[in-house]
Amino acid sequence: MPANLAELRYEVALANRVLAHEGVLDAFGHVSARHPVDPDRYLLSRSRSPELIEPADVLEYTVDSQPVVPSRQQLYAERVIHGEIYRARPDVMAVCHHHAPSLMPFCVSGEPFTPVFHLGAACGATVPFWDQRDDFGDTNLLVVKAEEGASLARALGHHSMVLMRNHGATVVGEHLRQLVFRAIYTCHNADYQRAAKGLGTERPLTPGEIEKASALSSMPNVTSRTFEYWTMRLAKAGELPPSWQPAKKAASPKPASARAKAKKKTSSAALRRAGGGRKR
Amino acid sequence: MPANLAELRYEVALANRVLAHEGVLDAFGHVSARHPVDPDRYLLSRSRSPELIEPADVLEYTVDSQPVVPSRQQLYAERVIHGEIYRARPDVMAVCHHHAPSLMPFCVSGEPFTPVFHLGAACGATVPFWDQRDDFGDTNLLVVKAEEGASLARALGHHSMVLMRNHGATVVGEHLRQLVFRAIYTCHNADYQRAAKGLGTERPLTPGEIEKASALSSMPNVTSRTFEYWTMRLAKAGELPPSWQPAKKAASPKPASARAKAKKKTSSAALRRAGGGRKR
Amino acid sequence: MPANLAELRYEVALANRVLAHEGVLDAFGHVSARHPVDPDRYLLSRSRSPELIEPADVLEYTVDSQPVVPSRQQLYAERVIHGEIYRARPDVMAVCHHHAPSLMPFCVSGEPFTPVFHLGAACGATVPFWDQRDDFGDTNLLVVKAEEGASLARALGHHSMVLMRNHGATVVGEHLRQLVFRAIYTCHNADYQRAAKGLGTERPLTPGEIEKASALSSMPNVTSRTFEYWTMRLAKAGELPPSWQPAKKAASPKPASARAKAKKKTSSAALRRAGGGRKR
Amino acid sequence: MPANLAELRYEVALANRVLAHEGVLDAFGHVSARHPVDPDRYLLSRSRSPELIEPADVLEYTVDSQPVVPSRQQLYAERVIHGEIYRARPDVMAVCHHHAPSLMPFCVSGEPFTPVFHLGAACGATVPFWDQRDDFGDTNLLVVKAEEGASLARALGHHSMVLMRNHGATVVGEHLRQLVFRAIYTCHNADYQRAAKGLGTERPLTPGEIEKASALSSMPNVTSRTFEYWTMRLAKAGELPPSWQPAKKAASPKPASARAKAKKKTSSAALRRAGGGRKR
Repeated sequence: MPANLAELRYEVALANRVLAHEGVLDAFGHVSARHPVDPDRYLLSRSRSPELIEPADVLEYTVDSQPVVPSRQQLYAERVIHGEIYRARPDVMAVCHHHAPSLMPFCVSGEPFTPVFHLGAACGATVPFWDQRDDFGDTNLLVVKAEEGASLARALGHHSMVLMRNHGATVVGEHLRQLVFRAIYTCHNADYQRAAKGLGTERPLTPGEIEKASALSSMPNVTSRTFEYWTMRLAKAGELPPSWQPAKKAASPKPASARAKAKKKTSSAALRRAGGGRKR
Repeated sequence: MPANLAELRYEVALANRVLAHEGVLDAFGHVSARHPVDPDRYLLSRSRSPELIEPADVLEYTVDSQPVVPSRQQLYAERVIHGEIYRARPDVMAVCHHHAPSLMPFCVSGEPFTPVFHLGAACGATVPFWDQRDDFGDTNLLVVKAEEGASLARALGHHSMVLMRNHGATVVGEHLRQLVFRAIYTCHNADYQRAAKGLGTERPLTPGEIEKASALSSMPNVTSRTFEYWTMRLAKAGELPPSWQPAKKAASPKPASARAKAKKKTSSAALRRAGGGRKR
Repeated sequence: MPANLAELRYEVALANRVLAHEGVLDAFGHVSARHPVDPDRYLLSRSRSPELIEPADVLEYTVDSQPVVPSRQQLYAERVIHGEIYRARPDVMAVCHHHAPSLMPFCVSGEPFTPVFHLGAACGATVPFWDQRDDFGDTNLLVVKAEEGASLARALGHHSMVLMRNHGATVVGEHLRQLVFRAIYTCHNADYQRAAKGLGTERPLTPGEIEKASALSSMPNVTSRTFEYWTMRLAKAGELPPSWQPAKKAASPKPASARAKAKKKTSSAALRRAGGGRKR
Repeated sequence: MPANLAELRYEVALANRVLAHEGVLDAFGHVSARHPVDPDRYLLSRSRSPELIEPADVLEYTVDSQPVVPSRQQLYAERVIHGEIYRARPDVMAVCHHHAPSLMPFCVSGEPFTPVFHLGAACGATVPFWDQRDDFGDTNLLVVKAEEGASLARALGHHSMVLMRNHGATVVGEHLRQLVFRAIYTCHNADYQRAAKGLGTERPLTPGEIEKASALSSMPNVTSRTFEYWTMRLAKAGELPPSWQPAKKAASPKPASARAKAKKKTSSAALRRAGGGRKR
């Protein structure tokens, strides 16, 4: 992940938009990244639907989930999900909370999620199930208190995804691209598992296969190829976030042609970052 | 909701288009709003498919479902659904009748709709089921007589949605944005409930959870964030309704560039109304 | 339907494209109309995928399914479906043969299709099932011989749709708009019937309801409103057929602006024909 | 298939993009063609998501799956699938490996794939099932060693498609268009088979029908009509590959209008190759 804060803001906006464009996020859900320098901080947008997020929306929070710079903007009610996981899991650099249609049938029915194809093993063999009632009784199901976030983080344990009863899921990663890969391919896996069960029976991977296949989500060429693909799809739809470059030159307004050129440059920069075309 | 009649007409057109764009409405179905000043009137389009409605299509009706200004245009046959609910429910400010694919399996099978995730609790614990045959025997299933509308309003009672056997559903709200939120998330809920049942079993929210979670649909920041999202999606698809501004300046035709600017202004106005970016 | 042959050619191309755009037709399937003057002829495209058909592709055939003007173009192998139905059913003015994904599960499983909502009653209470093996044994399932077409027409009888085992469906109408309405809403009905069965049980309309509701597909305001909707969707996607106007002025090439204007005129003409905005 | 190497490169890129656009391929999967002159070579892209592939990405490999010209680019890990099948099956001129969502439920459940409609018979009566564990025990399921590819080729035998347990499928063809046709219509077949089973029961074609119907995928007018359709859909989405013409004239840069014209010419060339409009 970029060490430059402005670039990381752009990447957080980009990851939100990619996951919205691929059907993981809708009006709700959010993606964050740990601060590149200060491990006790994280970057998360103000309250806004993921596919609309711009780098300027991405704020800094402490692990107590308080904004570093006090803000009058509406903030996500559920940001403690991110703060408490960053506190409990030093290895985690990116978090996504979502309610993807593919996973909701598992959250509602309680049927266990299990890897049924190689890419679906991206979160490993075990995906725990968290029931908010166990610790907190009847709630509106939102995770808004620090202790609720901490309870969820405990349920996640050392795993990569946790299902939340009648609510959704939370996924983590060592970097944003691995997180995006895991969020998308666990959805595919859920679809195939459910369809296979409807057709006859679900036959999962063996434990040995899961162990070997789960390593695919950590291979740079796998996450680069997929991230290039999802970013290009976003670009073709005209949905890339606006540039994260500091607006220094805003003082002297550019003519239209210069602005168009700048926009194009941003796009190719985004694609270069997405790993297009060159061996790594 | 806007107190200005012209703005409300725009909002009615917008709500129709949003629900068409999100898959709740197709060639049929309609959204209305109670008149901002006269509670014995409501605003509803002439007979037209929802995604095509323009502010100029939106007419005023009395609660007897007669147009205030006699019209030679084709009117919706089922407008009594709106009139009779506005008559029976003074708290209701917006009504939507639809045949969303997500809800039809429940209308056909008679299986009870039940909240299975927090956002799906937007219409509360109970969604009654209305069978037109009970009062009227065999019909073509359209609700066209005042007494048919009144029977449906009685079945709705104090609830927020009613399913109609082998026909569709009718949803109500305290304002247009809550209505849109309820119409969309009850569809998501129906999809998840059906998929969960196919996968294993549907485990609904507890009564206490439903009570707490149903309040989410009344929180302004929730309905603003979602409405910004759905409006932006409509805008990106180029599907926003034409401006509601009175066409005073039509006398002196503008050059193309002025028209383009006007169009852009309308769009940003629409987005501003949709709650984008500012804490409320 | 237009009495003018050129306009009818345009309408045949338009109906093909609407049904492709709405998911009834894909690379295969075709829509025809009876000749407006000579009842022993019909209009059908040369062999081409429906969403690509232009008015110039639409040829005249005799009811023997021979082209009136000998052609070196590839012709649909299954055109006898159209010819034999026009021969057997003087009331039929339009025919569509398709393999819509919504209906295929019924063609494969043999489960009876039954109306489960008011618009799904557009083809009446009974949809017969034709098994080509009964008369012809093992074939490649295409309907290419006159006697195969005649056998299918007999199975259709006086009904409005016939399912074809492991193959697809054929629908008829009194005019193109009714045909399009029937083709689309029988697909919706099939989806709801199948989903309702998966959810619990399918509870069909009563015979009395079917009789009353099936009349909706013959009401001009219903078929006009839906045709306006589907045509607008096609127009927004940039998929309207090119103009059917005779290309007389092609001799003196127009400048770009004139061509653009001409194109626009065609579109509004198409929409006017589609019944937009005016009471009929 | 074109005998000209540059044109074949373009066709390989085009086939990849068509299959991505029609939902067979996503970030993964690949299409290759045998070399037009040297049967011991084949053409396959460098490692890249199919919908992004350009003719310049398409490299030459020996049947040992080594690049003919050493490359520093990332190569597909699973290219032995192609090499070993070209080695074992002299009649095969094109290969596609994919993980289409339509087929995954069969790969996971082990339910046998069987033709249930005429176009679904494109791969014949028997689609074998390969379990990588039988020969190799626990792996990450990727087919990366020559012996793994050879084992898969043996399982394929003289058939046209093989399912791979918990992984995906591999399809072959006598030319690229037949391959594309088979890949797409076996997906449709899988959808209908699964839906029919959910609705009641799947009733397959008879052996005699399969034999006759499978010949459809070898008829030039069938593969031309479908390829025109899929190529037009790709063209409308603006997704055709860039021209394969040698970039000789790159020395003297063209003005914008010339470039636009060139681009247009490429598109119509693509469509002409796709078989549009003329009897063959």
